[in-house]
Amino acid sequence: MRVKLVVAYEGTNYCGWQIQPNGITIEEVLNENLSQLLGEDIKVTGASRTDAGVHSMGNVAVFDTNTRMPAEKISFALNQRLPEDIVVQDSCEVSKDFHPRFSNSIKTYEYRILNRRFALPLERNTSYFYHYPLDVKKMQQAASYLVGEHDFTSFSSVHAQTNTFVRTIYSLDVSKGNDMISIRVTGNGFLYNMVRIIAGTLVQVGAGMIEPERIEEILEGKDRALAGPTAPAHGLTMIGIEYYHDRN
Amino acid sequence: MRVKLVVAYEGTNYCGWQIQPNGITIEEVLNENLSQLLGEDIKVTGASRTDAGVHSMGNVAVFDTNTRMPAEKISFALNQRLPEDIVVQDSCEVSKDFHPRFSNSIKTYEYRILNRRFALPLERNTSYFYHYPLDVKKMQQAASYLVGEHDFTSFSSVHAQTNTFVRTIYSLDVSKGNDMISIRVTGNGFLYNMVRIIAGTLVQVGAGMIEPERIEEILEGKDRALAGPTAPAHGLTMIGIEYYHDRN
Repeated sequence: MRVKLVVAYEGTNYCGWQIQPNGITIEEVLNENLSQLLGEDIKVTGASRTDAGVHSMGNVAVFDTNTRMPAEKISFALNQRLPEDIVVQDSCEVSKDFHPRFSNSIKTYEYRILNRRFALPLERNTSYFYHYPLDVKKMQQAASYLVGEHDFTSFSSVHAQTNTFVRTIYSLDVSKGNDMISIRVTGNGFLYNMVRIIAGTLVQVGAGMIEPERIEEILEGKDRALAGPTAPAHGLTMIGIEYYHDRN
Repeated sequence: MRVKLVVAYEGTNYCGWQIQPNGITIEEVLNENLSQLLGEDIKVTGASRTDAGVHSMGNVAVFDTNTRMPAEKISFALNQRLPEDIVVQDSCEVSKDFHPRFSNSIKTYEYRILNRRFALPLERNTSYFYHYPLDVKKMQQAASYLVGEHDFTSFSSVHAQTNTFVRTIYSLDVSKGNDMISIRVTGNGFLYNMVRIIAGTLVQVGAGMIEPERIEEILEGKDRALAGPTAPAHGLTMIGIEYYHDRN
């Protein structure tokens, strides 16, 4: 059977999702622990291949297995083995043709910016500390230009390999509670580094370095150099993925 | 001059506030870094001597110094030296007779309980994960009996050394957002482990093991054995301290 996992993790101590030679990754830890648990060679496929330092509340992974263990029990058994910074939130059986990246989905990410005089130790691994005051209203105005279907070439890392840079953002909400600015974005897919480049650009808008109206020109220019910098990884959290037409 | 510091820290990697032989403490790190910064032997006195694993957004410490550095600049200079899990939020001069523990104050603590099916890695060091469903309404009802001036002997660690167990709780609010239950308590002073014993007792109330009305009997009994267990340290955060009649 094919099993879908919903995986939460703190990315601080990992070199991201995808297996690579220079450090330990989420994918590797899942493969090793699932293989031990189920007594087979298990290889998971992830939905969002998050970068080093990026966190998750609900990333999705699937794997195929011959186990007789009910899919729903795998989460409990696996969590007994996993380190405390990776916790599976759910496990269930899905159809054999379900693919976490190629099935239609709505993804939500959150980027958090701590905007105050001094950093807060409790927030240091899960938000980007920015000392200079940010104008949230301007950030909200700038965000409104990004909502909808656009060519997001300007908001994609130059290393991105993709057929099309057109994506749809369904919502992009900028809110502030105490000193924490939250950028929450929902869309049908995101280019490499897209959320972090949107966050880095909105920070420059909030700081008065880019006028909100310029976002339209930046989109139209289709040039990465026009947008702001890529905001640091540790402010980003993969919130969750909803699959539709998902025959599971 | 006497200088007051407002100190935020993540307590995870410290053996609490107070200097002790078996591990590194917040007090020790502040003393060492202040002594190096100011070129004198500096010893801080803390307001809340938090236990190992307890966090702070606004603990207070004072020290005496002969430095010519303006008190307001010390926070910036000290933060350059401190590890990233300790950040001074403010520094200012106070009168020579100001004492962080013996001056009249209102202290606020927060105890957080993550109440859901599976733990969340991002919350693991700053909340107590409790799987069994908790009834927040019952916890709120129980909390109401604790507000006001009471003898809190039943909610104090047996090791507590104090003249009187009478304290006043001004407010004790239990709220829930998503799966996080927050117990926020404000009072004129707290006995040793008092907030954690209140939290441990409210958890038992929420779980249906103690009826809310029994809180009155527990207070009247003046016996630590009547209350619930001491909730784990890592769910507790010292939020802040307001001093009144504070001639600074």
